[in-house]
Amino acid sequence: MTQRPAVLIMQRHLAPLTAFLDGAYDVYRFWEGPPIEAAQAIRALVVAGEFELDKALIEGLPNLIHVACFTSGYDRIDVDWCHARGLIVTHAPGVNHEDVADHALGLIISARRGLASGERLLRSGGWAAETRVLTPSLRGQKVGIVGLGLIGQALARRADAFGMEVSWWGPRDKPADWPRADSLEALAKQSDILVIACKVDDSNTGLISREIIEAVGPNGLLVNVSRGQVVDEPALIEALRAGTLGGAALDVFVQEPVDPALWADVPNTVLTPHTAGATQESVQAMLMLLMQNLAAVLGGNPPRTPVAG
Amino acid sequence: MTQRPAVLIMQRHLAPLTAFLDGAYDVYRFWEGPPIEAAQAIRALVVAGEFELDKALIEGLPNLIHVACFTSGYDRIDVDWCHARGLIVTHAPGVNHEDVADHALGLIISARRGLASGERLLRSGGWAAETRVLTPSLRGQKVGIVGLGLIGQALARRADAFGMEVSWWGPRDKPADWPRADSLEALAKQSDILVIACKVDDSNTGLISREIIEAVGPNGLLVNVSRGQVVDEPALIEALRAGTLGGAALDVFVQEPVDPALWADVPNTVLTPHTAGATQESVQAMLMLLMQNLAAVLGGNPPRTPVAG
Repeated sequence: MTQRPAVLIMQRHLAPLTAFLDGAYDVYRFWEGPPIEAAQAIRALVVAGEFELDKALIEGLPNLIHVACFTSGYDRIDVDWCHARGLIVTHAPGVNHEDVADHALGLIISARRGLASGERLLRSGGWAAETRVLTPSLRGQKVGIVGLGLIGQALARRADAFGMEVSWWGPRDKPADWPRADSLEALAKQSDILVIACKVDDSNTGLISREIIEAVGPNGLLVNVSRGQVVDEPALIEALRAGTLGGAALDVFVQEPVDPALWADVPNTVLTPHTAGATQESVQAMLMLLMQNLAAVLGGNPPRTPVAG
Repeated sequence: MTQRPAVLIMQRHLAPLTAFLDGAYDVYRFWEGPPIEAAQAIRALVVAGEFELDKALIEGLPNLIHVACFTSGYDRIDVDWCHARGLIVTHAPGVNHEDVADHALGLIISARRGLASGERLLRSGGWAAETRVLTPSLRGQKVGIVGLGLIGQALARRADAFGMEVSWWGPRDKPADWPRADSLEALAKQSDILVIACKVDDSNTGLISREIIEAVGPNGLLVNVSRGQVVDEPALIEALRAGTLGGAALDVFVQEPVDPALWADVPNTVLTPHTAGATQESVQAMLMLLMQNLAAVLGGNPPRTPVAG
């Protein structure tokens, strides 16, 4: 066992964290091979919350005490299982919701006002004097927000500034500046644009079902900045092909990275590679919380931002 | 001479107006050949304000009394020359500024948060688990607005909702909720994002010069939703290639439609085909004003929305 605590980074896209962690910790990187020789030393896992924990691995780390989610979301982390084993789970809440809301507005404008399709037309030489495509004005469009958490509220404030009419639905009512629909289906029916901004857990996989997608309808736009699995993705693709849904603007997918062949000939889509929350400022704030949580837990103190459970 | 007044539509992209005009007027369409036989009958020209008037043609229309701009802008119309000939000029003001501001915000988000480049990455199969591109957060970015007219103000209100810091410059000071910079150069220097939202006239061709572009700088973004000729376009392209300007998001160009070869290998650009104001709602409102102005002027009454001069 070395002098310093050891941490194990699980996902390859978190590799850049190494530079910050290795000042204080011995850093192991899972994709470089299982750290068999360090199994005794590892005190913390550093993970992204959209990946499932490797429970067999954890069971082989006798001195592990901390599962540190770099992300805000921890939807694939079995928190109950961790707590039952005495593991502390932390995450990075309240850090990137403004950025995610910005990105969602960008997706709405791009899809609704034809920015992405206009750019394709221009760059392919298809812009001619006699072609002028008209799009619907945003003003007066009805935006329905699924989940009025920090992201949903940030989104609603922006939509207000565009003169859009906001309403929302979530399983629990709460005081809010915008009206809550009676049900998800009612929200989908009354909305021109349905934005999925909810937290993901076991209960809402496939929440945006074929019925909800068809309620958004042939002139409607579905926007997802939450998690891919909240939407029935095969039903979504089918609805776009059939024209029973007008369009989709998606930052998240069931399988990431996306196989582009899956979307190649699906019409009326704007797609981004899960970057809604990926700003320099957010990542810096997430890094700060990660370092503070690791220092606290491995130093025997209470974590700064634990996942309760 | 026919019973009904005759109108001549000048630009091909205005062809869809025919259906609305021919209920009340005999409609001629310039691109189908000069209406020599109708020269006596034509009372009004229907034009888009970004095209120069054909003065020789006008001189051959002895009963012309009205130059009716379908558009809000009339930058290429020689209004003084028209007035000197006794022609009434009308346009469609105050109709699409909210839509233009929406589009400008879409351009800002797409360029700054990498929506367009992210979509290209995703669709080309370049999104891999280990690639995660970080972009700057919009919150706290300094937005400088050139021209605080209706578009500029609509843009400023939206930028506020994103937590951006707005300032502006225009040749004339006026009461405003946002601070005015001392000069255009000062605005360009202090801004992360410079948005051109001014009205165009003879005085501001090339206003956004090489010096102004370089003042926006290697991390800065230039956005244009005004007119192409306000920017020194060759200098803009050179600055983007050299990296002395960080990026450009453009809806307008010196030559429209654009030859895509001109922009094919210019980095860090988001381009749309002059669609910022082209919504169904705006066009409907512009059509309404056009019909009202034509009915008034050809009926011998004062126009609803004249261009003063």
